[in-house]
Amino acid sequence: MKTLIYGKHPVHDALTHRPDVVEKVFVEPEQHPELDALAKTKKVFRAPFDEKAIEKKIGADAVHQKIAAIVDTEKLTADFHPFLETIRGKSGVALALLAEIQDPQNVGSIIRSATAFGLSGVLIPKDRQAHITGAVIKASVGAAFTIPLVMIGNINQAVAELKDNRFWVYGLAGEGEKNVRDEDFSENSVIIVGNEAHGIREKTFEHCDVTLRIPISPNVESLNAGTSAAIAFYEWKSKQNG
Amino acid sequence: MKTLIYGKHPVHDALTHRPDVVEKVFVEPEQHPELDALAKTKKVFRAPFDEKAIEKKIGADAVHQKIAAIVDTEKLTADFHPFLETIRGKSGVALALLAEIQDPQNVGSIIRSATAFGLSGVLIPKDRQAHITGAVIKASVGAAFTIPLVMIGNINQAVAELKDNRFWVYGLAGEGEKNVRDEDFSENSVIIVGNEAHGIREKTFEHCDVTLRIPISPNVESLNAGTSAAIAFYEWKSKQNG
Repeated sequence: MKTLIYGKHPVHDALTHRPDVVEKVFVEPEQHPELDALAKTKKVFRAPFDEKAIEKKIGADAVHQKIAAIVDTEKLTADFHPFLETIRGKSGVALALLAEIQDPQNVGSIIRSATAFGLSGVLIPKDRQAHITGAVIKASVGAAFTIPLVMIGNINQAVAELKDNRFWVYGLAGEGEKNVRDEDFSENSVIIVGNEAHGIREKTFEHCDVTLRIPISPNVESLNAGTSAAIAFYEWKSKQNG
Repeated sequence: MKTLIYGKHPVHDALTHRPDVVEKVFVEPEQHPELDALAKTKKVFRAPFDEKAIEKKIGADAVHQKIAAIVDTEKLTADFHPFLETIRGKSGVALALLAEIQDPQNVGSIIRSATAFGLSGVLIPKDRQAHITGAVIKASVGAAFTIPLVMIGNINQAVAELKDNRFWVYGLAGEGEKNVRDEDFSENSVIIVGNEAHGIREKTFEHCDVTLRIPISPNVESLNAGTSAAIAFYEWKSKQNG
């Protein structure tokens, strides 16, 4: 799939970290000389920025700063089995698994936090899950181009294979059995983040080795999915240095 | 100031927790009978939902579910000095202070997390700071109607007064002097969250008793402001129960 990314930062990050996934940059050389030069250096095709055509695609409210690019998200993402090979035998590894996250802001924010706390990859199911779009990439603030984004077919199948590879499987849930603060994350870990409204599905829940809760005030129904994920990643990171 | 809120949840939360700030609900009784009845019970004026007029205000992409309401944000927010009186003499108090946060998503998310982790209020400067709008209220998922939102004039003046009231002042910064994990938050606390791009201003920074950092990977420039705030609130909460 192709997606349009826009704005100076996302285009700069794409050209810097993953020029191989950028098909074309829409840029006016006199407006953004550095980005024009960067695209040229990285041997990426350039075309004039057609404001009307691009606003028609991304909406008139999106802040594009008169620069955009087409990214091939299939090239940007990795396949599950080759990815598993890259981490085989390693210790101190953690992965995030998005289980039906719908809001592109949350997907981008989780990718950003996973990268910040040193996770090794973000697993993204092909179905019932927000895809990697320009909005996701923008919300990730460049992180989408630096951390492996790994496509998985079926969540429960992927979780089973990770268990075979000696991963410990954690599910985040408001009613989780263990306070995330008390978990030592001593094994390679997969942290599953569920849907914004209904959380982690029953069947996936049953596959979790431990379900983790973040204690909150009874006045509030739940934390934002991106916030919960960030706190779990932060706890994982804290325990790795201890 | 008046702001338009929209969507079932925000309107429901406003009518439930703060009917006094709701000036009018735009609702079709046959579409949302419960919300229509709730508005009636709470003695709030009702008017027909004029889709065209409302979409013109909030944008065609905003998810309004054919229900909206006018909220008086001046009534919703509290003034600083009367608020200080309500917490005088109490211990185990923490406040969030927004120092020039620009993104309404971040403001709403910080209000939601502050409420979830049991903070006593969110201090919001009148200038150079995103105001309480429909987008902020939506992103707070109801929390804007339950936690005190306290307007302050000048940030540094408010910080000085809080110090006079024996508050300990923390500033969040990527280059903070102390790891947030190592802070025991044993005194009443103010946690300052700075602007998304330039962080906390020099002058405000000088007023901080301690600056706190959240350790992240060197590959990532920074955490999202809402994420940093949530982790600091989470740490504060963890230390209160210890």
